[in-house]
Amino acid sequence: MQARGGIDLGGTKIQAVVVDARNAVRGEARRPTPTKGGPQDVANAMSEAMADAAELAGVETDSLQGVGVGSPGAVDQATGEVSQARNLPGWEGTFGLGPQLSDALGTNVALGNDVDVATDGEFELGVGKPFDSLLGVFWGTGVGGGVILNGERWTGRGAAGEIGHMVVKENGRRCPCGRLGCMEAYAGRSAMEHKARREVEKGRKTSLFKIMEKRGRDRLTSGIWWRAVKHEDKLAIELIDQAIEAIATATASAVNLLDIEAVVIGGGLGTRFGEPYVKRIAKAMQPHLFSDDRPPKIEVAALGDLGGAIGASLLVAR
Amino acid sequence: MQARGGIDLGGTKIQAVVVDARNAVRGEARRPTPTKGGPQDVANAMSEAMADAAELAGVETDSLQGVGVGSPGAVDQATGEVSQARNLPGWEGTFGLGPQLSDALGTNVALGNDVDVATDGEFELGVGKPFDSLLGVFWGTGVGGGVILNGERWTGRGAAGEIGHMVVKENGRRCPCGRLGCMEAYAGRSAMEHKARREVEKGRKTSLFKIMEKRGRDRLTSGIWWRAVKHEDKLAIELIDQAIEAIATATASAVNLLDIEAVVIGGGLGTRFGEPYVKRIAKAMQPHLFSDDRPPKIEVAALGDLGGAIGASLLVAR
Repeated sequence: MQARGGIDLGGTKIQAVVVDARNAVRGEARRPTPTKGGPQDVANAMSEAMADAAELAGVETDSLQGVGVGSPGAVDQATGEVSQARNLPGWEGTFGLGPQLSDALGTNVALGNDVDVATDGEFELGVGKPFDSLLGVFWGTGVGGGVILNGERWTGRGAAGEIGHMVVKENGRRCPCGRLGCMEAYAGRSAMEHKARREVEKGRKTSLFKIMEKRGRDRLTSGIWWRAVKHEDKLAIELIDQAIEAIATATASAVNLLDIEAVVIGGGLGTRFGEPYVKRIAKAMQPHLFSDDRPPKIEVAALGDLGGAIGASLLVAR
Repeated sequence: MQARGGIDLGGTKIQAVVVDARNAVRGEARRPTPTKGGPQDVANAMSEAMADAAELAGVETDSLQGVGVGSPGAVDQATGEVSQARNLPGWEGTFGLGPQLSDALGTNVALGNDVDVATDGEFELGVGKPFDSLLGVFWGTGVGGGVILNGERWTGRGAAGEIGHMVVKENGRRCPCGRLGCMEAYAGRSAMEHKARREVEKGRKTSLFKIMEKRGRDRLTSGIWWRAVKHEDKLAIELIDQAIEAIATATASAVNLLDIEAVVIGGGLGTRFGEPYVKRIAKAMQPHLFSDDRPPKIEVAALGDLGGAIGASLLVAR
């Protein structure tokens, strides 16, 4: 079997896959992203997840054609170094993630930006296939964006796609990035958790943290938000409503600027909440669309939770 | 002389130029855009302005190589028809502007979108020349935007560039387009005038409308706003400050999404307020820029008030 590996390094979890030559998933495994320690601990968890995925696929990691990694932070594709990966523990500096993983796994490792590889995955293998221009919105710990124009990724001077930091409210809520009124300040999992904690401190009731403890977690994962909303927790519903409104507003602004054909909503929260919530985003965009008689297609990421890892595996094929 | 004509059809004024083969302006004339009547009255005023510009350039209009027109509304380049030109009197339907002007002037007429031709003008002849990716922001009666990526205009499915309708404040001020919180609701000349009138109705004092009457105008032109601000009119200063903040917020959002190299600020208000205010826009963008260590260049449109008309004349050269 001509197999390739792909790892999606997220702020909440590490997802590894092994795919065959036709991009079908032959094995997959995950680890929670370490919240303590440093880059080496994260690299170890990544190697373990990859080894598990390979075992399930019935291959050794050193027989893989290579492993692609979608990483947050600033990625140097030439050296395999990752810098300033906020949301990851002790990763303010630079760490040679590529060489480390390559040693541990015994195969080549290619690095890319997490959101870029997820966008490429959806564009090449997922719901993006029929379109020439596309906006990927990855609703997870943060909210990342990928822009495809004329069938190619648009990176600008290297930092394009920061849809999470488009402003939805002048002088609005403080974002984890430090700025005011960013979309991510309302929609990012991390920002939403921060807001929920502040509301609890102010005396509001919520089942969010009870569910978290019951499930032995130390943060509000997408699954916990989902469960709380399903059980009609008022605070969870309110914060998810605000998130939907913020995503819709920023996405509509992006559509007014670029008039792209389609929007793909992915990421941990995006795939967990799925179709009904993506429909709500589409509906909330409508009043902001300048060409409102011709909205773009709004779709849930087809590769689902594995999209980032499958997209990362495409780095090897190149 | 191989001369070409260009007409910028704005919501406030009609600007005509005659340029030579090297794009140097040889004659220019303007008319206020009619506020009453219908499309034919607008077309007549355009012909008159063009005839004046030609006379100043020492040519007959029928000896011009052609006349390019930058028009608001939906432009059909093939038929020369313009539909739904809001901001123009009685122009809800479709009018054959191209054929009308061609008859009146005795030469070929080529039509384009007003913001597109102004962006092309700045990109080909103005401050945009050194850049490969560019955002044009035309701050006038409304606020239009033009996007240049990889040296070419990005039009999306035909309606890209609506930077004036990017949202800067969820549930914010009502925009002339009917939506809430658009940038243009705070920064468009027309919206600002509407807001000023409402403030006066509420009892606020301002010299804006006194200056307007004194100068025999029926609306608050860019020059009136400029004069009122220079005379430290509090309401004018407050509304211009809000406009700058809104332009900065939407433009920073666009930069976070596209990471383009440069932003050109033009339009009636943009060129009238000029360099010091464009510097203020750049400064107000800074706190919203995600890559704040590497802001794009922010420049005043070099072709100034004539940019739209000169850009329109480029339609003929093609």
